[in-house]
Amino acid sequence: MTDTAAIAERELVLTRLIAAPRAKLWRAWTEPELLKQWFAPLPYTTPVAELDLRPGGRCLVVMRDPEGRDWPNPGVYLDVVENERLVFTDAFVSAWEPSAKPFMTAIVTFADENGGTRYTARVLHWTVADREEHERMGFHQGWGQCADQLAALAARI
Amino acid sequence: MTDTAAIAERELVLTRLIAAPRAKLWRAWTEPELLKQWFAPLPYTTPVAELDLRPGGRCLVVMRDPEGRDWPNPGVYLDVVENERLVFTDAFVSAWEPSAKPFMTAIVTFADENGGTRYTARVLHWTVADREEHERMGFHQGWGQCADQLAALAARI
Repeated sequence: MTDTAAIAERELVLTRLIAAPRAKLWRAWTEPELLKQWFAPLPYTTPVAELDLRPGGRCLVVMRDPEGRDWPNPGVYLDVVENERLVFTDAFVSAWEPSAKPFMTAIVTFADENGGTRYTARVLHWTVADREEHERMGFHQGWGQCADQLAALAARI
Repeated sequence: MTDTAAIAERELVLTRLIAAPRAKLWRAWTEPELLKQWFAPLPYTTPVAELDLRPGGRCLVVMRDPEGRDWPNPGVYLDVVENERLVFTDAFVSAWEPSAKPFMTAIVTFADENGGTRYTARVLHWTVADREEHERMGFHQGWGQCADQLAALAARI
């Protein structure tokens, strides 16, 4: 067996307390028409969201940059627990076709806290280098801005 | 997106018609005490089989070579359909900790055919290089010998 770097060295975490019930955040993550409204950090948009919400189901989210170029993000759901936990990965493009490059697995959880929701996204990478690259690409700012957009959407649905 | 090699170039397949009902092959794959009797190509043995049989469940199979060295194979089940289909991968060591090296995902299927079972193992790799390496390591002979051992076990349980 190859030695594996400690999980903490391959993980990025974003967590927020959001003033909305878990069920609304869940809807925003799982209903395509809602997800399109917050998923990409503005001025990026999300023209496509196909979400086959079950373990092994395919998710395809396409982000569009301000120049009009599309950035498809295909993946597969690994775990789906309503209002609680959503796990997906880009290691597969469908069940179970390996992708060109397994980069990350995201574990998104929703828990009651102080009348709102503790929203946590743990993003796990296969290598320390990929975690570092994701951080350089602006993980904290990008996912942070999206969490703000998610919170704003949850307040109006 | 990176271009991905066609799945056929990243896949190894073993298929056999086995004169046993699906349910017996399923048991041989999913009951630890049975799996230990056929999983490693003799003279290798299988001293450890821990099988948490559910999507996201961990599987740990340890093979022992004739010199007494142990070769642990940790993985995670992705899909479990009794008597029909078992999917597991070494891309994770537990739900959902990425492994040091995502090497393969195996899709094992069992289907009725001519009073016996069509047994098929499709082994998918992330890269063509890994598929080639797996073939050089003796995939066809190794999985073939194990299929014989599996058939022999199924005939006596």
